[in-house]
Amino acid sequence: MSRVLRVAAAQMGPTQKADPRAHTLGRMIRLLEDAAERGATLVVFPELAFTTFFPRWLLEGEALEGHFERAMPNPAVQPLFDRARALGVGFYVGYAELAPEGRRFNSALLVEPDGSILGRYRKVHLPGSVEPRPGARYQQLEKRYFSYGDTGFPAFRAGPGFAGAIMGMMICNDRRWPEAWRVLGLQGVELVCVGYNSAAYDPNGGDGEDAALRTFHSQLVAQANAYMNATWAVAVAKAGDEDGSGLIGGSCIVDPNGRIVAEARTLGDELLVADLDLDLCRQGKAKMFNFADHRQPGQYGPITERAGVIEPAPADPA
Amino acid sequence: MSRVLRVAAAQMGPTQKADPRAHTLGRMIRLLEDAAERGATLVVFPELAFTTFFPRWLLEGEALEGHFERAMPNPAVQPLFDRARALGVGFYVGYAELAPEGRRFNSALLVEPDGSILGRYRKVHLPGSVEPRPGARYQQLEKRYFSYGDTGFPAFRAGPGFAGAIMGMMICNDRRWPEAWRVLGLQGVELVCVGYNSAAYDPNGGDGEDAALRTFHSQLVAQANAYMNATWAVAVAKAGDEDGSGLIGGSCIVDPNGRIVAEARTLGDELLVADLDLDLCRQGKAKMFNFADHRQPGQYGPITERAGVIEPAPADPA
Repeated sequence: MSRVLRVAAAQMGPTQKADPRAHTLGRMIRLLEDAAERGATLVVFPELAFTTFFPRWLLEGEALEGHFERAMPNPAVQPLFDRARALGVGFYVGYAELAPEGRRFNSALLVEPDGSILGRYRKVHLPGSVEPRPGARYQQLEKRYFSYGDTGFPAFRAGPGFAGAIMGMMICNDRRWPEAWRVLGLQGVELVCVGYNSAAYDPNGGDGEDAALRTFHSQLVAQANAYMNATWAVAVAKAGDEDGSGLIGGSCIVDPNGRIVAEARTLGDELLVADLDLDLCRQGKAKMFNFADHRQPGQYGPITERAGVIEPAPADPA
Repeated sequence: MSRVLRVAAAQMGPTQKADPRAHTLGRMIRLLEDAAERGATLVVFPELAFTTFFPRWLLEGEALEGHFERAMPNPAVQPLFDRARALGVGFYVGYAELAPEGRRFNSALLVEPDGSILGRYRKVHLPGSVEPRPGARYQQLEKRYFSYGDTGFPAFRAGPGFAGAIMGMMICNDRRWPEAWRVLGLQGVELVCVGYNSAAYDPNGGDGEDAALRTFHSQLVAQANAYMNATWAVAVAKAGDEDGSGLIGGSCIVDPNGRIVAEARTLGDELLVADLDLDLCRQGKAKMFNFADHRQPGQYGPITERAGVIEPAPADPA
């Protein structure tokens, strides 16, 4: 079995609140078809790909519920699944999940080229807040709308349609947390798919970070964590101006040495295609990052013992 | 108290096996004096700064023992400590430690400008092997010569001579392990000092990595881990050709956004000086990397439960 997988990062431009869902789905199907034409067998879409990034508003009732999927697939998204299966292309896609028992998650799905579902993931690292920021024009209410994913970071061994890759998923903010990458690395991950919606600047002003710095951060964490776990990574943005709030682009495909092999140049719908030789993960996993030989978990206790910072005591005044 | 600390990264060129220790110490004192003249109050020297990188050879008896310090300071290195105290400059230095009970460690020391010892650290992530590689011209025998450091990654709150910084130490390979950075981050670290000796290429041939790629790796991990822990980092090489075995340079000073603010351009003795505003760590620690708000240690179990990889089971043949 060939260990080379042709992957397309399907960056999406903005999706406005008023855009009909069928319009957005049409854009995704076009990206999928372009990817298939270029020979890709895996297409990576962004986080919350079917809608605008709705946690920027305080919503309730149907204005909120309308963004959630009650099953996956469901009739509203079925055409994407059907087209993918017909083309023999699999995909990663992020979506807002309303689980049968009523909990909501920021979730992602990996679908193999034959249409079977390889795996599901629910976002662990929810940014933002539960309570709205008073007077702010834009919110970040992921902690209000979603429950924390509670199944860790599972890796999945794909079938021949994905070259037998060991694959993992993250969503947006997860990629800034090396713990997420390491838990996947400890399962031998060879390809990490990440969709994101990352603000290009503080939409309420104030923190001094601009789009260039935030794009740098986004790529830096993908590069270093790919290297430190000897894995490929595909990080894909929803980008551009959504109803006055800017999102970075910077989608990229990163090799197991942490080098960017393909990178988005726009803030719109844009496809990056690359051949990922999964065997390029081998050297790192066998040598520098041979975890069994070199990790010292007995020295890592605080990482799982507590969430927050405990500073060393102040020195005695001399 | 000012929260700005002027730091000098004191990259060192190669130290040959035949170089007298007094000669090497003289180079270190010159770097220290240059740093003091440029107003630095902290000088960061490399790993195993007083000697050549001796784990590249299979040694025993006095040929091995001569590289170790039986106390720190001791008469052979006292002139560095004396000169530093006289100039009011503190330093980080890496050295081979022979502990009173007979164990050996790859260690580092942080000395404050008043000459007091702020902290000690023993390298956790020892690369290489216990047994020599048969027929190899150069070895990497750290696992043979040193015991694993067993006190984790302690952070230290410095006195006013170091602007009250919360400081941590790593040694060489540690910097490639995000666990090391995170344990320091969980103590609120504001400045991580790392000395290293990193091979510029496989001296026995074979793995295809060159000095440019390895320098990229070295800087990438310092940058991303500094950002992900909202800390300054100073990473300092012993560089150049030691007895036919090449070491990368690439010493750098990295800000809490992961940006390189100063970078070595040579493979020789070279000083990089920068003003580190410790308060630049605050925004990251309060927002994006507010660990108490955002970390989910319940999902990180495998990181401390085991050292090595457990791959997902192969899919059932369809």
